[in-house]
Amino acid sequence: MRVVLASASPARLSVLRAAGLDPLVEVADVDEEALLEALPGAPPAEKVTHLAGAKAATVARRVGAAHPDAVVIGCDSMLLIDGELVGKPSGVEQARKRWRAMAGGTGELFTGHAVLRLADGEIERVAEGHATTTVRFADLSDAELEAYLATGEPLAVAGAFTLDGRGGWFVDGIDGDPSNVIGISLPLTRRLLTGVGVGVTELWTPTR
Amino acid sequence: MRVVLASASPARLSVLRAAGLDPLVEVADVDEEALLEALPGAPPAEKVTHLAGAKAATVARRVGAAHPDAVVIGCDSMLLIDGELVGKPSGVEQARKRWRAMAGGTGELFTGHAVLRLADGEIERVAEGHATTTVRFADLSDAELEAYLATGEPLAVAGAFTLDGRGGWFVDGIDGDPSNVIGISLPLTRRLLTGVGVGVTELWTPTR
Repeated sequence: MRVVLASASPARLSVLRAAGLDPLVEVADVDEEALLEALPGAPPAEKVTHLAGAKAATVARRVGAAHPDAVVIGCDSMLLIDGELVGKPSGVEQARKRWRAMAGGTGELFTGHAVLRLADGEIERVAEGHATTTVRFADLSDAELEAYLATGEPLAVAGAFTLDGRGGWFVDGIDGDPSNVIGISLPLTRRLLTGVGVGVTELWTPTR
Repeated sequence: MRVVLASASPARLSVLRAAGLDPLVEVADVDEEALLEALPGAPPAEKVTHLAGAKAATVARRVGAAHPDAVVIGCDSMLLIDGELVGKPSGVEQARKRWRAMAGGTGELFTGHAVLRLADGEIERVAEGHATTTVRFADLSDAELEAYLATGEPLAVAGAFTLDGRGGWFVDGIDGDPSNVIGISLPLTRRLLTGVGVGVTELWTPTR
């Protein structure tokens, strides 16, 4: 059975590879803004789960012919800070502002997940869910912030921080699942796979 | 300034590399049992910090001549389950027993840290501390446990689980710093570096 990751995120791919999967990557080009406009006032968990489902379904329809026996995994992550959902910063100035507001405080990372099981190239079973992880940001100094901004790393990611890169120095702790912060919750994905009748260990690559 | 990691752990090295450091690895061969016998009844935090300090000091004395301007980082991790400190399992049977006891429950990962700053080859400043992270283990099935044991991964690590490998599927969440679970807390190391007068961002490798 083929595992297909419906995401362009190198961080998600890296999490899955470290955990023993070797997914095919197929990027879904969904219109996120249009999808979200159809859900006015929806809570963050519903938004990210809806987007994850749309990404997975788009990719499932595309790969069904080539990979009739597969599971397709879609994800979407957003950071909630002071009641506001934030994505990637527009530039270094916005990233600096965000960090000045986040430093010493907390945010909530929402990741929606959708797991679609294909049989004979058709979507046979679907399991969806979301996970939330609280992130406690360090009270970093101006010099540290400027050095971090200069790496370019915070400009490329939702919420302007990473847990698996240099941002890890500036996250004092989390409450929840760390892989969820990186963009794909391993324990939730495991439960969703079980929900569509697939044991995650059956998908593992050989270890020796 | 050279960064020296006084640990043979590939997981610690990997955490530091992902976070922008390129440490020299120098393994300390301290007699852990003898060191712990000198601290009868000490709490876990004191034990791991004492071992971390001994490892860092041993390596600092060894590398001082070759690397007179350096910071040496020592770490030691232990998992506390049901009031008992556990290290690496003795074999597959002990790993299976541990997991049957841990599944659906929690453990506490203690990591002691010592940061020694060398100047002119001598230990000039020392900062020590520990971090504790609570780990919530999934209620995994017998089939999942057997598949995990068969990978050999849990046999090589303290507490018989990893967060950064296939064990990640079976950790439902944590409360604390995830890098601490892998064996070196980035935010604590950052604070200890500050404590010896070194900004972590000054140690970063170039990004481009």
